[in-house]
Order: sequence, then C-alpha cells, then structure tokens
Amino acid sequence: MDAHIITIGDEILIGQTLNTNAGYIGEKLSEAQVFVKKSSVVADDEEEILKEFGACWENNDLVVVTGGLGPTHDDITRQCVVKFFNTELVQNKEVLEDIHTLFKLRGRKVTKVNEGQALVPKIANVIRNSRGTAPGFWIEEQNKVFVVMPGVPYEMQEMMTSFVLPGLQDKLIDNKIFTLRKTLQTTGIPESALFEKLGDLEEILQGAKLAFLPSQYGVKLRITVKAKDEENAKNKLSEIEQKIRGKAGRFIFSRENELLEEVIARLLKERGLTIALAESCTGGSISNLMTNVPGSSAYFERGIVSYSNASKVEILKVNEDTIAEHGAVSLEVARQMAEGVKSISGTDLGVSITGILGPTGATTNKPVGLVYIGLCDEKVCTAQEFQFGNDRILNKQRATQAALDMIRRTLLGISLDD
Amino acid sequence: MDAHIITIGDEILIGQTLNTNAGYIGEKLSEAQVFVKKSSVVADDEEEILKEFGACWENNDLVVVTGGLGPTHDDITRQCVVKFFNTELVQNKEVLEDIHTLFKLRGRKVTKVNEGQALVPKIANVIRNSRGTAPGFWIEEQNKVFVVMPGVPYEMQEMMTSFVLPGLQDKLIDNKIFTLRKTLQTTGIPESALFEKLGDLEEILQGAKLAFLPSQYGVKLRITVKAKDEENAKNKLSEIEQKIRGKAGRFIFSRENELLEEVIARLLKERGLTIALAESCTGGSISNLMTNVPGSSAYFERGIVSYSNASKVEILKVNEDTIAEHGAVSLEVARQMAEGVKSISGTDLGVSITGILGPTGATTNKPVGLVYIGLCDEKVCTAQEFQFGNDRILNKQRATQAALDMIRRTLLGISLDD
Repeated sequence: MDAHIITIGDEILIGQTLNTNAGYIGEKLSEAQVFVKKSSVVADDEEEILKEFGACWENNDLVVVTGGLGPTHDDITRQCVVKFFNTELVQNKEVLEDIHTLFKLRGRKVTKVNEGQALVPKIANVIRNSRGTAPGFWIEEQNKVFVVMPGVPYEMQEMMTSFVLPGLQDKLIDNKIFTLRKTLQTTGIPESALFEKLGDLEEILQGAKLAFLPSQYGVKLRITVKAKDEENAKNKLSEIEQKIRGKAGRFIFSRENELLEEVIARLLKERGLTIALAESCTGGSISNLMTNVPGSSAYFERGIVSYSNASKVEILKVNEDTIAEHGAVSLEVARQMAEGVKSISGTDLGVSITGILGPTGATTNKPVGLVYIGLCDEKVCTAQEFQFGNDRILNKQRATQAALDMIRRTLLGISLDD
Repeated sequence: MDAHIITIGDEILIGQTLNTNAGYIGEKLSEAQVFVKKSSVVADDEEEILKEFGACWENNDLVVVTGGLGPTHDDITRQCVVKFFNTELVQNKEVLEDIHTLFKLRGRKVTKVNEGQALVPKIANVIRNSRGTAPGFWIEEQNKVFVVMPGVPYEMQEMMTSFVLPGLQDKLIDNKIFTLRKTLQTTGIPESALFEKLGDLEEILQGAKLAFLPSQYGVKLRITVKAKDEENAKNKLSEIEQKIRGKAGRFIFSRENELLEEVIARLLKERGLTIALAESCTGGSISNLMTNVPGSSAYFERGIVSYSNASKVEILKVNEDTIAEHGAVSLEVARQMAEGVKSISGTDLGVSITGILGPTGATTNKPVGLVYIGLCDEKVCTAQEFQFGNDRILNKQRATQAALDMIRRTLLGISLDD
C-alpha cells in the first residue's frame, strides 16, 4: 500500500508552524507496514490543493490530508474535498451532538460558527473528534482511501489511533515483503567516530540498511531489514543489533523512542532510588525533562535552579570562598552543589550543573560552552568538565543530555571516561 | 521568484526526525519576498530524488535542497546532484582546510571519511560550513538557482544567513506586488471566541488576509497584505493591526516571533525588577523557558522545583497544616509558595504553580488538569485557578504559558480576569 501525506497551510510553508503532523502520520503508517512514498505541503489555495489531490490520488492507494478544517473563514479544505469528489455538504447529527457535549464540558456556549462544523461531505464516513470540534473524513473509492483530518496535532493523533489505523488494518493485504525498523539511540560520541568504531558495515548489515541520524542530543542508528515475514525480519534485526552493541554498546542508551529521561526513570524506579537536582546554567531544563515522565514524583524529590551565587550559598551550602577562589563555574562548585542538594533533600543521588552557555559570561580562562556536571551517590562525589559550542540553546540541550547520560552511566556502572 | 523546498531523508518521511529545515527555509525565503509555492519530502532513493529534482527544477526559479550530505554511506544527495547536472566531483582545497581547522579546534583527528567531504560537484560554487564538515552547493543555470545544504539544522541555518540569502538578493528583480505579513500572538482565549470577538472581518481586513493558528500556547493571528510597494503595505498592515488590537488587545502578547518569556524579559529589564519561581507540577518548565533568554541572570534570581511536600515546607516555608487541610494542590498553598519564594530570594516578584497534570494524582474533588498559579509582588499576593485537559505534556505547556501570561499581565497592569 503506497501512501502520500499532504499537509495544507500557508503557516507550514512560510515556517510559522512546524509540520509535526506529517511526521506523526508517517511514523504510524510505517509501523503499520504502509509505504510512505512522499509527503508534501501546499498553500491555502483552492487551485493548488485540487491539483495536489489529483496527482496524489492517482499515484497512491492512500492519501492522508491534514489542515484547513477549522471554523474560521481561512479554512478551505472541506470545500476542496466537496469539489474534488463532486459531492455536497450535509449536516451530521452525531457531530452536532459531539460539539454541544464538548462545549457543555468546558462551560462555553455553542455558536453558529461552531455548529457549522457539523456539515460534512455526503460521501464521507465521519471521523468523530473527541478533543475538538472539527470532524475528520474517511472516503473510499476504487479500493483506495482518502483521509482528511484537522491540523491540530492532538486532535489528529486521536483520530489516527482510534479510527484511521484500525480502519487501514482491513485494507492491508498480506505484504510479500515485511519491513522492520529499529533505532538505537547513542549519545556522547560524534557521528564520524561512531561510523569508524563500527568498522566493516557490509559485514554487520549483510544487505540490511543502516542510517546515521545526528543531532545535538546524539546520533541515532536506524536499522532497516526486509524479509519474507515478520519472524525472519526479527531474527535478522536482532543479529545486527548484537553486532552493533558489541562495538558501541556503552554509547547506546535506548532502543526506539525511549527518551534518556525515561531510561533513567525506569532505572531509578527499579532500584527504588531518589534524586535531587541543582541546576545553574541549564535553568531547570533537566528537572523539566525528568518531570515530563508520568509518575516522576516517585523518585524526583526536588530541583534547585540556583541561578544566582546567593542561592548556591544559601540553599545548597556552597562555600563562598570556593566561589571566590575558583569561580561559580568550576569543578569544585559543581561538586559542592551536588553534595549540597543531596544532603538537603535526603536523596540517594544529587546531580548538579554549572556552566557558561553564552552568548555572554565568558572570561579569559573560561570560554562559552564550558560546563561542569557534578554527581554524588552513596559512595562517591565526582564532577566532570565538558566543552560545548557557541549557541546558547544548543548548549543547554547538549548539557542537559550530558547530565542525563552521566546519571544513566552511573546507574548502570558504565565508566564516565570516553 | 517561485521556490520549491525539497527535504531528503527516510527519517523525515517515517517521522523519526521532525522537518524543521523546510520551515526555517520557508520563513527566510518568504521574508526575502521569494514565493514558496510548495515543499516536499523524498526518500533516500536515487530514482525518487532525481525525479523530484527534475519536476521542481522545471517549475521553479529556485530549488532548495537539504539533507543527505553527511560522511556516511547512506548519504546520497551529492551523487544525485552530480548525475542530475551531468558533472563530476573535484576536491576543493578550502573545504579541506576548513575540515582540518574544525577538527583541530575540537581536538579530534581527521580521518579519510572526513576528508572525503571536500569532494564537490565541479559546476557548483561551494558554500563553506563553519559549524560542521559537509559543504553546501550553489548551482546557477538558465537564470535559475539550485541550492544544496546539509540536513543538520544549525549548519544549514548558518549557510542560509551568511551565503544563500545574500546571494538571492541580487537575483530578486523588483517585484510588482509587495507581500507583507505580521503575526499577532494571543493567549488565554479560544479560537472561536477570538473569531467572534473580532466581529466583521471584511470591515477590518478590506481585502487583506487573516489566518487563525491555534495551539496549546494560544492562537496566532497572521495578517497578510499585498500592495504595490513596501510603504503602502506597511500602512495597510498598521491600520488592520490597530483595529484588531482595539477588539482583542489584552490577549495579544506580542507581534511576530517574540516569545512570551522574551516579552517578560524585556518588561522586567525595563523596570529593573527581579523574579523567583516556585514550581511544583511544571517541574522547572517555567524556569527553563525564562532562562532560555540570553542575559536572564539580570532578573532571574532562582527557581525552586518543589516537587515533594517536604521541599515545599523546608525551602518555601509552606505551612504543613495548610497542606494537610487544603492539599498541596490548592489556592492557599499556591499563595504561600509564591510568598515563600519571594521572601527567601529577596526578589520583587515571586511566582508559584501547583497542580495535577496527570495521568495519575486526581482525587474526587480535584480532577486531572486542575492548576493553581500564585503571584506576589510588592503590593499583593494573589492566586488563580485553572482547569486544563487530560494530557500531561500539553497540560505542562498550557500551565507554563498561563503562568507566563499572568506575569505579563501583572507587569502591564492588565486585569487577570477574563
């Protein structure tokens, strides 16, 4: 089953809104063994939209469209669907009820504008919207499927999982080739160094594909194997993974989409350990990620964003003389911050970070990008120096990732050197 | 000048990497008065890439390609460019030197793999890479331009601003129609309520375009005017903006891309005020955003991520009896947290947040999504109740935005009700 994803909206083309929808849909379709051949973004322009509908509908078995279904005048996708399929709008009672229910829940009044969203193309099956007012449409013709969903990501996502993906299951004839992908996420090693560490790729892959995906968070390794069925694909993949782990295992922090903070959450919970953080330069970024994980209150006790020197001294009990002698950005202060936050919180681990992220704050001895991360557990208190780049936000992200990886390595007993 | 943006990479199609590049390039080109007609994503497949090159090159004056220029075997864009333009690879001395310089700076050894990146298509002008090893290419033929850049966002961005945009300036013949866009960012009001508040759009717009762009952070209003020159466009836009502000001014927190935390940073600096935060449910998210702003140490004194009750009592001096009586998620605790953090930090403002973001933690009286935000300044201590939705991460983002907007409104003396 070949698919094309169309995103509609000037805001995407001119870069005002990030196109997260095409990625989400691409991911879900790929997992369901649909082959996503291409995706495109078109303007809020009837002629352009109809042209794109035509080209994609001809060359694919599945076309998925998002965007332009809102209640305001600038949303024209619904009228384009009506024209393209030569149908008409009819009022749908269920959708009208859904809209009234949703507004009642939120304590707001239904208006004419909202009620207008219950008008749907006659030939479409309606995809109800549990998180908003605009319904989606599922149209089948000539054994092909045309799906239209709103552009608001969480509304579209709900429709994908509850309606579109189950609906596609029936359409997917047994594929002769089974495609399986797995991604190993690494951090703490540059792309070219990782490439060389792996050595002879032909020997590792035996015909499978390996992609290197670098970012400020690390390098992802995506393995893609094709086999005649799922079992064969799994075996092949597992062999390749073992070979890669044999050569670069310590840098691999997780498979698939598990985030580094989720890996740490799992490790901390398994061991019944608690943690507290003292962040200076990262300004709460590490705490923010760690508390994104549901249930994080089980292990995350507190975080101190000790931005000022006063807060380092008052709350974390960092020695004023140490700051005067070595500076707030130093191995010594990092170590004292980690010790301090562990001690006042009574946790098993205390982790700290202090650095110069830029653009200002550099001195003759201490350039922008210099960061110290401290870590104390029951046994030792240690601190490490890192040198990142020039960009403030990238540095924040790199420093956050490095601190999380230091926690991971400590929990797993992997050396911090290298 | 019509443009098409091509992003190359399976990782984008299958949703593993978000396509931030197409958005960035679309934004910069639109600002430069280039008309971005469409954008597309194609797989790492030579046939598909060459087909897309052909179609886009025929229908546009400018084609911008990113991705697939890395040092590893899975990067095939360079060889596709060579085939498409029927040229050959030659070694470029400047690029080779750049690579050696970069590696020296980072204290790493140059390898054969890295040196191979100095091979460039003979007909291309090289776009040097100050942030990585892969050079970009600028190819001109038949008065059209074909640009190729690496997929790593910060490398591409540097090439856009230092080379591509200046290069395009010479090519842009005076346009007969000048397009100008401005975006007003609102928060704290739903899309349909905002739409109705604005009333008769025809009267406001007089032929210009207005787009509504909703997200969990608020609704953006993008105005697009076309006029015969820049001055006329500016005047027309300014009139429309005044009319919109007259009807929904209090919800508009900034024009264009200024983030809410940047607005607050500006207001705090102008007034010489300092701030400290006490976050429970948002886990450092507000501190993180506020410290993203360069120079934030001038006003951001400290943040306390008081996740546990113990930390609320020990650090923020919240009364244990108040927690026992009203619960940690209550108006009273929010107020005491704000008071506490202001008092221990000696800042002008103290802001707090406590809530239940889900999926767990709800009680019979307190549903998921219930959040209290406290704020103390020199005059008053106040707290407000908010009810958000069911999704943990969306709730975190909504709660963070609501807290930042409460700070903004307080600094501007705008009522917190409504």
